[in-house]
Amino acid sequence: MKIALDAMGSDDRPAPDVAGAVLAAREYGIGIILVGDEPKLKAELAKHATAGLDLSIVHAPSAIAMTDHVEAIKAKRDSSMNLAIKLVRDKHAAAFVTAGNTGAAMAAAIAGPFLLGRIKGIKRPALTVTLPTATGRVLLLDVGANADVKPEYLYQFALMGSLYAEKVLRVNQPRVMILSNGEEEGKGPQVVREAYALIKSSPINFLGNAEGRDISKGSADVIVCDGYVGNVVIKSSESLAKVLIGFIKSEINKRPIAKIGALLAKPAFDALKALLDPSEQGGAILLGVDGVVIIGHGSSDAKAIKNAIRVAKQAVEGNVIEHIRAGLQEAQTLA
Amino acid sequence: MKIALDAMGSDDRPAPDVAGAVLAAREYGIGIILVGDEPKLKAELAKHATAGLDLSIVHAPSAIAMTDHVEAIKAKRDSSMNLAIKLVRDKHAAAFVTAGNTGAAMAAAIAGPFLLGRIKGIKRPALTVTLPTATGRVLLLDVGANADVKPEYLYQFALMGSLYAEKVLRVNQPRVMILSNGEEEGKGPQVVREAYALIKSSPINFLGNAEGRDISKGSADVIVCDGYVGNVVIKSSESLAKVLIGFIKSEINKRPIAKIGALLAKPAFDALKALLDPSEQGGAILLGVDGVVIIGHGSSDAKAIKNAIRVAKQAVEGNVIEHIRAGLQEAQTLA
Repeated sequence: MKIALDAMGSDDRPAPDVAGAVLAAREYGIGIILVGDEPKLKAELAKHATAGLDLSIVHAPSAIAMTDHVEAIKAKRDSSMNLAIKLVRDKHAAAFVTAGNTGAAMAAAIAGPFLLGRIKGIKRPALTVTLPTATGRVLLLDVGANADVKPEYLYQFALMGSLYAEKVLRVNQPRVMILSNGEEEGKGPQVVREAYALIKSSPINFLGNAEGRDISKGSADVIVCDGYVGNVVIKSSESLAKVLIGFIKSEINKRPIAKIGALLAKPAFDALKALLDPSEQGGAILLGVDGVVIIGHGSSDAKAIKNAIRVAKQAVEGNVIEHIRAGLQEAQTLA
Repeated sequence: MKIALDAMGSDDRPAPDVAGAVLAAREYGIGIILVGDEPKLKAELAKHATAGLDLSIVHAPSAIAMTDHVEAIKAKRDSSMNLAIKLVRDKHAAAFVTAGNTGAAMAAAIAGPFLLGRIKGIKRPALTVTLPTATGRVLLLDVGANADVKPEYLYQFALMGSLYAEKVLRVNQPRVMILSNGEEEGKGPQVVREAYALIKSSPINFLGNAEGRDISKGSADVIVCDGYVGNVVIKSSESLAKVLIGFIKSEINKRPIAKIGALLAKPAFDALKALLDPSEQGGAILLGVDGVVIIGHGSSDAKAIKNAIRVAKQAVEGNVIEHIRAGLQEAQTLA
């Protein structure tokens, strides 16, 4: 398996991107095609022990900046993002990974000059993440691809999320819920109520409405929502966790005796840090695109890049695209 | 000042409701009219030292249950919720407080048999809470009254939130933001983008789009959103905080040495607990209703009831209704 990495993606590019590629090639025994400024990538690779690893470079003369607008994907035709996507389109790579500009990456996959396009029948792709819960992890989608949705989009998110949870994350009969502002059927915005009816009448293992509290309680394996509320949830949760931990630390530092306590309790905090660490998550998958597309945090370090590549590898091995294609056809036959 | 308390509101009614009323009457020196089952309330009051306190009882033969549907507000005409609202309508009390069924309380205020109605010109009332942030508190509205909104509703939420922050919470020139899924103008669902334009062209001190992370970062004094996303945010935040603290505790309990540490760090955790304690918040205010309406958690204890009464008292003293009325007229004159 070869994976095309936009090596000019992260905020500190290309150092973390290249280091992450080296880690992934070694740990997973897969091939990585680094796409970006060749001299820079060569110089960066020279800092690592790469003997025996399947690492190659494809030169890209330009790169998309985090501050670029989505339109840059058309203007910068020869950007590392576009050329890495092109490798997937032309079957030279099985998946695309970037830690770059999320909006541009989605545009490159769906509407760029070398677009992969949508899986036939899918109305809108959904940006999909997993979040830690009290009991494991939950798949949340959409977290930012579609600010405005229609009931059918939410139904398709439920279908794609369920298939991804089952085939890639190996969850048996994934429990699917829809995010609302009340437990009972009939609660929530109109689009949610209409999507509820669609999902309920499908073969999806549907548990009904999730409330905000169900996300971290672990009440579901998959929770679907529009990209606006999903994006607000992930960003507010990440920030709240930081603020809480910062608060505990500052309170501890106010009191010498508490400081000693904190030192002794350090393993507990380290475990929490690992649980919340976004670099463990690696990246979000853009489900619904006809190709595996993984988008990581701009602040990715080498470990985060490695884990984003792991997410890509798992999606390829789980045949997620084929399963969504088949699942969609089956649903249409049933309907 | 007299405040009408639905004494049959909380999950454990009427014990916490009555105990909270006694605390509030003593601490704030105000009158509380307890509305509910008279024999039960008398028996409950007898458990407290009430000499010199301005506490009275208005009998209500029925009560709204947490499991009741909103329609119960019409069926149970003589419920404690309706009769407490009636005291405000008839000017026997300056504010209404309940820890009961949120949907029923909103319905009682806006559409019940003794409705207070909306302030003239206000399209939709908004359920409004304050949340702790890294730097203080932020006012978030709407958190559940309106799952579907129009741009004008969001604009009015911004206006009401700004006036409440200024006149009741004494924030100088409150910084107002609108919740979206991207920082830049033009990001977000259509309704948010249209509301952005309305708020921007008003005299409100508008800082533009807030992302999820801005809520607990303290980037704004007031953040407006629809009741669906607002409800998801407060419920997911509350649950996440619980899960994080539970996780730290369970990690600590795994290790004897960490246990000692935790004991020493206890003051830090106690400070965190106080910060997150929903009973400190007291209750949400339903802004836009022509009368002060405060709705607390069903799980309220005496302290939470007392604090909900405090929120009511502050809103009355801050003349929030008159300020919203005047602010709305001024905005309409300018437009």
